[in-house]
Order: sequence, then structure tokens, then C-alpha cells
Amino acid sequence: MEFLNGICKKEVTEWDELTGTSLLNQEVVLEGAVHSIRNMGDVAFVILRRREGLFQTVVENEKANLSIHDLKEVMTLRVKGILHEEERAPHGREVRVQEIEILSSPAEPMPLAIDKWKLNTSLEAKLNLRPIALRNIQERSKFKIQEALVRAFRDFLYEQGFTEIHTPKIGARGAEGGANLFKFSYFHKPAVLAQSPQFYKQMMVGVFDRVFETGPVFRAEKHNTKRHLNEYTSLDFEMGYIDGFEDIMGMETGFLQYAMELLKKDYTKELQILKIQLPKVDQIPAVRFDKAKELVSEKYNRKIRNPYDLEPEEEALIGRYFKEEYDADFVFVTHYPSKKRPFYAMDDPQDDKFTLSFDLLFHGLEVTTGGQRIHDYNQLKAKIAARGMEEEGMEQYLDTFKHGMPPHGGLGIGLERLTMQLLGEENVREACLFPRDLNRLEP
Amino acid sequence: MEFLNGICKKEVTEWDELTGTSLLNQEVVLEGAVHSIRNMGDVAFVILRRREGLFQTVVENEKANLSIHDLKEVMTLRVKGILHEEERAPHGREVRVQEIEILSSPAEPMPLAIDKWKLNTSLEAKLNLRPIALRNIQERSKFKIQEALVRAFRDFLYEQGFTEIHTPKIGARGAEGGANLFKFSYFHKPAVLAQSPQFYKQMMVGVFDRVFETGPVFRAEKHNTKRHLNEYTSLDFEMGYIDGFEDIMGMETGFLQYAMELLKKDYTKELQILKIQLPKVDQIPAVRFDKAKELVSEKYNRKIRNPYDLEPEEEALIGRYFKEEYDADFVFVTHYPSKKRPFYAMDDPQDDKFTLSFDLLFHGLEVTTGGQRIHDYNQLKAKIAARGMEEEGMEQYLDTFKHGMPPHGGLGIGLERLTMQLLGEENVREACLFPRDLNRLEP
Repeated sequence: MEFLNGICKKEVTEWDELTGTSLLNQEVVLEGAVHSIRNMGDVAFVILRRREGLFQTVVENEKANLSIHDLKEVMTLRVKGILHEEERAPHGREVRVQEIEILSSPAEPMPLAIDKWKLNTSLEAKLNLRPIALRNIQERSKFKIQEALVRAFRDFLYEQGFTEIHTPKIGARGAEGGANLFKFSYFHKPAVLAQSPQFYKQMMVGVFDRVFETGPVFRAEKHNTKRHLNEYTSLDFEMGYIDGFEDIMGMETGFLQYAMELLKKDYTKELQILKIQLPKVDQIPAVRFDKAKELVSEKYNRKIRNPYDLEPEEEALIGRYFKEEYDADFVFVTHYPSKKRPFYAMDDPQDDKFTLSFDLLFHGLEVTTGGQRIHDYNQLKAKIAARGMEEEGMEQYLDTFKHGMPPHGGLGIGLERLTMQLLGEENVREACLFPRDLNRLEP
Repeated sequence: MEFLNGICKKEVTEWDELTGTSLLNQEVVLEGAVHSIRNMGDVAFVILRRREGLFQTVVENEKANLSIHDLKEVMTLRVKGILHEEERAPHGREVRVQEIEILSSPAEPMPLAIDKWKLNTSLEAKLNLRPIALRNIQERSKFKIQEALVRAFRDFLYEQGFTEIHTPKIGARGAEGGANLFKFSYFHKPAVLAQSPQFYKQMMVGVFDRVFETGPVFRAEKHNTKRHLNEYTSLDFEMGYIDGFEDIMGMETGFLQYAMELLKKDYTKELQILKIQLPKVDQIPAVRFDKAKELVSEKYNRKIRNPYDLEPEEEALIGRYFKEEYDADFVFVTHYPSKKRPFYAMDDPQDDKFTLSFDLLFHGLEVTTGGQRIHDYNQLKAKIAARGMEEEGMEQYLDTFKHGMPPHGGLGIGLERLTMQLLGEENVREACLFPRDLNRLEP
């Protein structure tokens, strides 16, 4: 009988050894895709792309088993050779090749020059050729940064006693109401795709006190803007036993601090490739919604058209204001108007036209919505009635409150928006592997 | 201006301090939900439920600001009192209460006796009252075990140089083909819910070499069995530069070893609560599909009805065989028939009726399907043609191969099935927070 005992040993040299000193002038083996070939006649510099980065190999005619002319871009190779110091090569190392094994060959040449430092093409073209365009080193680095953000979110919340949950994306009704639901037939029953894990994460506060989820959410919004996606990854948490919604903002600040540390520690390569300046997260100002509107109205001489709404331009100006006045990259805008928030938002007992809620703006763009929720059954029912809403389809959600819930609140962070702002991109599609929008369902 | 500097300090005592020795006979503050009340007349034992577990508090009439009769089950409380040693209490500690603040009150009494050690109710009733039933300590512990599995999957793969990806759940067509797709209208275009991230993770191997995703998948299958869900969480990975599909099985074995270590290290409490015996993962036998059928046919005197199919009963017997003969909890069944695998599976060059693929059985139930994929463009096109399939809708997927891909393979693990088998449950719904099946769309 054959047995598997764990990870199978590979005969290739580890990246750390390739870029270190211990194997200099010794034989190494590496694998990778041919990122580019610089053919000098009798000698060619063949740059291999691996997950860790680019590595230079040198192929001299008649010194290896294959000729330079046998090699093409995008082949994948296993090469054996001697590791040499070479100042002009990336990482100061190159491999002088003795033996080449071709692992795979492309059928056609590349449609994009992915070996250029910056892909010189439109967003539209990049998205059409996404699986190819992402082979560019800068493009793929964006998604390592995104990885760091999700990873930090989870690791930080585990440390803070949160439990990870997986809630259904198919449901009988949406949590936020409204018209932006994708509808379909689920074995002849009407069903919708989840706009948010809101109801589920709240119900689970009664079980685990603190929960989080990182998963897709779906919005059938007909916005075609640089900020909207119809499917995105939401980083959600919900926590019980809060003293106020400041606890939620504090937890988010803690997450952002943790994320920046993780980026500095484990993602320095990508930060350098993308020339990212990490934002300031040591302290984040919090300003009331109405006050924020006043401040930008005064400073930028802009008339307040609607005291209960925040236009995208106003968000941008709030971002600018706090950058100019406090050198702040993030700002919490608190106490949003009740009519702009869903029924489950806790109204401010001081003034029920406003809620104990907030948005977090990052360089003038909303990246988070959160706040305290109503936890009392009768208060929740009263608000539903006052809004003229139906309880139908919400029985299970309401029953959870009937049987007791602690004071709680939470938030949802749009992962792609957070990534986009960190990268300094102009379009959220740059920060999504395979964006879904009004016109785009493929690839 | 107000600023947030990080996590807001709470005035409650940490769990480690409550159960440790440093605060004995001193004042502590704790919060929690009233899990049960044992009223002895002048004194009541009030058990509080927190995320970390249960904690005993003692309320004596006239010694606290509230009377015993003011307290009800499922209230949430903040109590202040003196921490005492008490052998008969959980963790050997109790708090003698001086001050009680009621944080919230239920509107109605509980529909289930969640304070019983084992919930004495049907699966159907548990699922109907899911958010309440999960407040039972055993029930909720199951999902801490599930958390450990997902966490181990990610942490292990990060260590192994994998990149985490988020791929769209809305697409123009399914990866696996067949009829089990949920269909809907996406802004007047026909769309489907993803059956698997298969195409996307393969395409991303060309970018990151090694990728993984943990997310929902959707199967419109009309099976109503104890093993099927119509929405489940899939743990997927895909890796390039493999020497053979053994690399995939080795990586999965490594993950399982990592997961068991994490469970032992950080989830001992839940392992004890659920009396879980961890399975053996030091070595996992691998047996060919045809050989496995023969072995169980001989040993259990069972006729082979179809040499190209594995029935659930046969899977169970293979599990039994390897438990009896090798004391193995897991077994890899390899070389599945080509006609039972999707078009992208790599056929065995020795015999193209079979594929370089595997299932992993855990106590006789399939919990993983994986294998090597075809990486050559022309070979992939030939197989699509040989099956009489259409290339329409797969252009982007195929183009990725046109422009070169390394040899690669991967797998998908059903999180709920893996959890179910680890828990020793009979029904996969026990291992899903909010299951979706033919009849269940709520809660």
C-alpha cells in the first residue's frame, strides 16, 4: 500500500536560498514561466517569473542542452545551473544554465506586453484579458496587498475573540430591503442573493458574542460608476456587549493599525513595487455628519443642498478637509440621518432624526458603514411599523430579538474600495480580480 | 476634535483573569447572557454565558441592588462582585454579586431548553430555531471546530506560498457543466451562480503559481440526502509546477496534519465539550479506484455492478476496509474513470479510461475531489471536442491556456462534510449554520 505522509519534497531550490549566499557557485534548480527573453546572439538573458518574483537566468548557446532559439516567452521551464553573484541582475543573482526542461509551451504569442514594468493599456483591455494582464508584476502585486488586508482583518479579529461564520448567500429576502436584489427561482420558490450578511451576523451575536465573515455580497444596483461593483467582497463584523458605537469604530481603528503593521512586516516587496505610502492610522478623527457638512461648506464655499444627504463630492471634500487640517487619511463621519439608514440602525436617543452610526472615509471615499443596532424586540417592531414596512419574511430575525439580545453593533468594509484607496487607484475595478458591473459578466 | 486611537478599553474583567488566581477575593466585572437560573430561595445561582464559556455568579437577596425575582433567563447583564474559589462551579470560580445592571431583557421566554447539556430535540426543530438552538454550548462548539478547519486551511497555505483570491460567484456559465446550475437574469443577460471557482483558480495559477479560495458554491441538485447541501463552503486550492497529482494529495495531507495540530493547540475546550477523537493523519493510504472496488468486493462479498462508478455504499465500505486493515481514518481513492470526471481532468497517459485524479474519503464519505488538470491548449481543445462539448462561453478560460500554463492541479474540500465527519454527525446539516436544501430557504 502507498501512503501520503505530508507535503511531497520538490527538487527545486527555495527562493530564500536562490537570493541568499549559502548556495553561491553551486548547482541550483528553478522553475518558472519565461517572463522575457533578451537575446544577445550567443547568449540570452531569460527572466523567469515565479510567485516570489523575477529571476535572471543566462543561457549560452552550446553550453546547455537546448539552444536559445528553442525558447519562447511564456513557456514554463525547469532549469538547472550554477548560481552566480551578478550585481546588475534582480536580487544580485543569476543562474548560468546547464540544463533546460520545457514543462509547457504556449500555443500562441502573448496579446499584451506583460513584461513591461507598467502595462501600457486601457482598463477595458486589461479586464478583457484579465488572466493574462495579471501576469504583469505590478498588476499581480495589487492582489497581494488585498490579501494582506483580508488576512489582517481575520487575524486581528481572531485575537479579539471573534468567531468566523459562513452564512448563506441564497435567501428568501434581502437584509437591506430596496430594489437592488438579484432575484431567481430556487426550486420554484422565489429567492434572492444576499446584499449583506446583516441579519445572520446579528443573530449570531446571540450565540458567539462577536462574529465576523469575509465573503461575497451582491447588489443589483444600476450604478455604473468608478466606485460601484455589483458583486464585491464584504468584510463584516458584529459585536455584542458594546458600550456605544465608539466601540465599533475603535475596533476598526485597531484593525487598520494591525493591517498596516502586517503590510510593513510581510508585504514590503509589494509596497515597494507599487510605491505605496501607508496611510496614518495612529489616530482617526471622528466628526458628526451635520458638522462635517458645515465644515466643508464653510471652507470650500459650497452650499448645503440637502442637510440629510452626503453627495460623493462632499465626501471627497470632507476627506480633503481632514487631510489639510489634521493630516488625516481616514475620517469617521458619525450620526448619519435616520432616514438614510436601514430600520435596524439605533436612533440617537438625543435626537432621533440621527442614528448612532458612522461611515469611514478613506481619502474622501466611503469604505465602511457601521453602527449600533437596535437590540430590543419591541423597539425594533415599533421602528418597522413606523416605516410602514412588512414583517413578512423577517420572522426568524425578529424572533431572535424576542428571545433576548445584548446591545451590539458592527460594520461592513468594502474590500475592493479599501484596496483601491490604499493603491491610489481611480477605479474600483482595478482592485477586483474579475469585476462584475452593469456590462461585465465575463471573464 | 475627537479621535479614535484603537480598541476602546472595556471595564470588564478578562476571561483569563476570571479563571486565574490573580484576582481571587477581589472585585471583578463581567457581562453575559443569563444561561440558566437555579433559584434556592434566598440565594440563586445565575450562570452567565459568554463567548468563552459559562461562568457561575451567586445572587443573594438583599446583598445586591436587584432581587432574584427581577432576573430572567436570556437577560443580558453586567455584574460586579467578588471573585471566589468554588470547587463545584465550572472553572472552580464564582462571583458573589454586589451590583447588577440589566443590559437587555427578552420579550418572551425561550422556546428551547438550551441550557441542557444536549439539546433534546429533532434536527428539524433545531434548524427552524437555529439562532436560538445554537446558544446551546455543544451546538455552538461545532462551529468553533469548523472555524479551526478553515483557519488551518488558510494559515497552512499561506505558509506554503499560496495567494488568497476572491473570484466571482456570478458568471455567464458554470465550470462543471451539467444541469445543476441556479440561473437568473443579470441586467437582462442570462447568468448562473458558480458551482465552483474551478476556471478562475486555474487561470490564476498562471499569475500566482499557487492560489486558494474559501467561499460559497451553489449546486442546484435535487438530491435530498444527508450528505448534500445546495449551498456550501468550498475550500479550494490550485497549484502549478507539480510533478504529478501526488503533490496535491501530499499538500492536502499536510493541511490535515496542520489542522489537527491547530485543534489540539487552540480548540481543546471544544474538543472536550464534543468528545472528539482526532483522526489519524500521520499517513494516509492511497488506493486505485479499480483496486478499491475489488478489495471491498472480495472482503465484503459484494458484487461489482458498475466498474466505472462508486456508489455511496461502496465508499462507506472502502472506509471500513481501510479502518479495519490499516487503522486509517482517511483514504485517497485515485485514478477515477475519465467519464466520471470533468473535461479538464488529466487522463492517465498509461490508460486514458482513467484520470490522474482522486477523492479523499473520511470515514467512508467523500470530502474532497482533486487531481491534475490538462495544461496544454491543444490537448484541452481536443478533449472538449471529443466530448462533443461547445467552447462557447469558455473562450477566456481557453485563451489562458493558449498563452501558456504550467503543469498544475488542485482540489476542492467540502467544509461542511469535513466538519460533519470530524464531529461524527450523521447529517451534513448539523455542520452548517444555516443549511440550504430542496425545502429549506430560511432562516
